[in-house]
Amino acid sequence: MGRIILGIDPGFVAAGFSVLSAKDRSLVSLHLCGALRMRSSDSLPLRIARFYDFFSKLIVEHSVTHLALETPFLGKNAQNFLKLGYLRGILMLIVAQHNLVLSEFSPREVKAALTGFGGASKEQVARVVMRLFPKLVSIERFDISDAVAISLCGLWINKVG
Amino acid sequence: MGRIILGIDPGFVAAGFSVLSAKDRSLVSLHLCGALRMRSSDSLPLRIARFYDFFSKLIVEHSVTHLALETPFLGKNAQNFLKLGYLRGILMLIVAQHNLVLSEFSPREVKAALTGFGGASKEQVARVVMRLFPKLVSIERFDISDAVAISLCGLWINKVG
Repeated sequence: MGRIILGIDPGFVAAGFSVLSAKDRSLVSLHLCGALRMRSSDSLPLRIARFYDFFSKLIVEHSVTHLALETPFLGKNAQNFLKLGYLRGILMLIVAQHNLVLSEFSPREVKAALTGFGGASKEQVARVVMRLFPKLVSIERFDISDAVAISLCGLWINKVG
Repeated sequence: MGRIILGIDPGFVAAGFSVLSAKDRSLVSLHLCGALRMRSSDSLPLRIARFYDFFSKLIVEHSVTHLALETPFLGKNAQNFLKLGYLRGILMLIVAQHNLVLSEFSPREVKAALTGFGGASKEQVARVVMRLFPKLVSIERFDISDAVAISLCGLWINKVG
């Protein structure tokens, strides 16, 4: 059985995700992509439980074998960095519970893999993603194109296993 | 039914915990305290799953109703801060799954509640904890005395509900 890769760009407002698989390097199939939206009026524990339930179910339904993530970096806001840690902790739990192979890529690696340039903009990454998957007429949010890009890295760059 | 409070001082090497309940302010009963140790040779997802399983089980076994935590602060090491976020994310999931009441206290609040002085040392906090619970002849680790102190704050300081 081939690899089925879930790429996630986690966030509390919207968590972009993408599931893809490949028979070989040239035949990549994008199963689905989208964004899980969460209501900021819900408590943090409720949103975290929603995130956990959503991705636990998606992994079973799509027989996901690999999880690809971007490595986080400490930006201006330490509280946002900590909260990103909450969601990453949930994803680590899911990795253990479903015995997934985890691979992580720096933002520069993702951009370089897609566009050839580590300093590319989110627009450039989105453009390449849409060229690769022409059925995605338009991607409404960059967190979705980022998630597709991250899952493609999971496919192209064999970091683990 | 009274409140049964779990206090946790999360960490990847050892996670101190304490469960206590009270009929009234003067009659506090310490059900148990200790530290969950994790092997650094295990992968991060495995340790996170162990943390999740351990505290999920403990909450059911002791009919815990409240979770008390210390608010984290960004120290010198951003990666440690992020990893603490992983464990806090797991605790938030547990709060939602077991419908617990969550309360958080700053390190200064915990120290002030126990010793009367927000700048108290861990030794001073441990000394007060041992005076309150003389059966604890010695506390082997500060993460355990800290967890007892945090759970006492959960009892004394009514921040939520």
